[in-house]
Amino acid sequence: MNGVNGSSISPGATIGILGGGQLGRMLAMAAAQLGLKTHIYAPEVDSPAFDVATRFTLGRYDDMQALQAFAAQVDCVTYEFENIPAETVAALEHLRPVYPDRAALTTSQDRLNEKNFFNGLGIATAPFVDVEDAGALARAVAQIGRPAILKTRRFGYDGKGQAVVRESADLAAVYRSLGGLPCILEGVVRFSREISVIAARSNNGQFSAYDVAENIHSHHILAKTIVPAHISTGTAARALDIAAQIATALNYVGVFAVEMFVAEDAEGTERLIVNEMVPRVHNSGHWTLDGAVTSQFEQHIRAICGWPLGSTRRHGRIEMQNLIGVEAEAWHDIMSEARASVRLYGKQEMRPGRKMGHVTRVFEEN
Amino acid sequence: MNGVNGSSISPGATIGILGGGQLGRMLAMAAAQLGLKTHIYAPEVDSPAFDVATRFTLGRYDDMQALQAFAAQVDCVTYEFENIPAETVAALEHLRPVYPDRAALTTSQDRLNEKNFFNGLGIATAPFVDVEDAGALARAVAQIGRPAILKTRRFGYDGKGQAVVRESADLAAVYRSLGGLPCILEGVVRFSREISVIAARSNNGQFSAYDVAENIHSHHILAKTIVPAHISTGTAARALDIAAQIATALNYVGVFAVEMFVAEDAEGTERLIVNEMVPRVHNSGHWTLDGAVTSQFEQHIRAICGWPLGSTRRHGRIEMQNLIGVEAEAWHDIMSEARASVRLYGKQEMRPGRKMGHVTRVFEEN
Repeated sequence: MNGVNGSSISPGATIGILGGGQLGRMLAMAAAQLGLKTHIYAPEVDSPAFDVATRFTLGRYDDMQALQAFAAQVDCVTYEFENIPAETVAALEHLRPVYPDRAALTTSQDRLNEKNFFNGLGIATAPFVDVEDAGALARAVAQIGRPAILKTRRFGYDGKGQAVVRESADLAAVYRSLGGLPCILEGVVRFSREISVIAARSNNGQFSAYDVAENIHSHHILAKTIVPAHISTGTAARALDIAAQIATALNYVGVFAVEMFVAEDAEGTERLIVNEMVPRVHNSGHWTLDGAVTSQFEQHIRAICGWPLGSTRRHGRIEMQNLIGVEAEAWHDIMSEARASVRLYGKQEMRPGRKMGHVTRVFEEN
Repeated sequence: MNGVNGSSISPGATIGILGGGQLGRMLAMAAAQLGLKTHIYAPEVDSPAFDVATRFTLGRYDDMQALQAFAAQVDCVTYEFENIPAETVAALEHLRPVYPDRAALTTSQDRLNEKNFFNGLGIATAPFVDVEDAGALARAVAQIGRPAILKTRRFGYDGKGQAVVRESADLAAVYRSLGGLPCILEGVVRFSREISVIAARSNNGQFSAYDVAENIHSHHILAKTIVPAHISTGTAARALDIAAQIATALNYVGVFAVEMFVAEDAEGTERLIVNEMVPRVHNSGHWTLDGAVTSQFEQHIRAICGWPLGSTRRHGRIEMQNLIGVEAEAWHDIMSEARASVRLYGKQEMRPGRKMGHVTRVFEEN
């Protein structure tokens, strides 16, 4: 089909997706629903996204020859996870448009860059100090106080790459426990809730966000998302503003998530502290598949194609529950529930902590 | 994942689908959302369903060797269209469970068998007479009157295989125009509306139906579906009863459609006349993808797997519009509409009369 202008992509085109997990899988299905073909590039043999893609390439992210062949077969490139090496994106962006672009990726990949970027926009974060070595950690602890959290600057997710610095901690041991990598030390934020904004910014500047989600974690993994979050209207509006501000500053293209803490003072006034920005579709947006007019996966595809963004309207009040490890054994029981939509990711092996699927329950609005 | 009992299929299993069009494509995506793998078997090189399936076989429906190899790689078999040769199903059913079964297929494939089946259940149809040859046509016309419609007993769809017998018609010429095949002659039904029921019956006997849909055709092709249909509550209940009666009589497994006419007498009392039963997911159920808790595609997969059927609840008042031929060029404009979900089938060639996609618009309930 014909495109609408020179820069946009048309149905029939092929979307290249780096990463073959459940996010790539759901992105590929969303693209197919819009008449697009998909090509997954991933290093894992049993990538769940391979099963629903038009084509796939089994390749490492540093295999430049395979990446070039991949680029030659697609019309644009996106990715399902933020730990794609920046060099991979650098190699691809000379060949095909890559969304979100490298600036968004490199900003979010490094906690120090990311927090400096937020603070530069006047967005509040937890207090933090750069920790380049064990000696710097002692100085950082003197500044931030204890307890504090030492985090590697790069490649952290689901609580990995983090260590708590307690009163009694041996600083050298804590630093070594994270592999001696460049870190930041973060002050502990006392918060009442964790929330996230899932938003999209299109190739042509259009911005759209879903209602703010409230997230409940268990063992550092998202267990449950509730929409709308139990926060004031004013706080919700400020959370959306922060997301819009970040998107504009990065000239961002695609769906992204902003994770925030809600802190309350003695009078119950809510204050937002931004934790991180995730440049991809996000687990706390999975409810949109069955609970909103347009899913975050479709929204991402629309955004990177330069197409109009879809409606973010909810079908009701939402509860999304992750099915982690053996929790997925409940799939059959959940299917009997009238309000539940269960989604399974087609992963062959059930492992503790592994995200196997999720359930979205939609209730009448209160 | 573990199954619940010996006869049911579990996530991780492979669903074999005969037919590679948009219905196969949407079935395959629904199966993938439930953690299943899919294998499409179709004779057309550019089958849109190939793009979203785990595997595909390009093969003819009479290639018994290819069918056997296909069966060996799947856990059960279903199909996306009702003109699959019964011999194909006969060959497969010895190797793997096939749903819906051959009885449902052979009943619905032959208009004479189908109408006799309906009448045997006390379900009203248009008057009809078997027409085995040109001589029989003259006797049939004497019985039914003119105008009447001559229809081939087998392989008709979207108005193909039909000819109107008008006052002035040369009967021999009309008969020849349909290729001299076995036919039936049908009396013309004066109806006020065309409706359809999309229903499912599970492997374990559970029955579930969506609200009755009203269908508007143009040039014998479905143009628009509205849900709920503009019929009385009593008529809607009778329509659902008829679908349940048919499903039970056939011991049916899967999703099916029953097309009906609503005739009104002088006092406005509505009467239902069943046109045909279609043993597969149906165009007038496409709205369920974006307008109901469970799509007809997911419902079919649940039914054939022996899993609990999902909720058929609507998200609002529905209008589904087919995008036929060049109508699909409007995809970009439709994407700007707040209430519209556009689905494109990934067909490479846009031809007049070809179903390229559809739009579902969901409105607040009146």
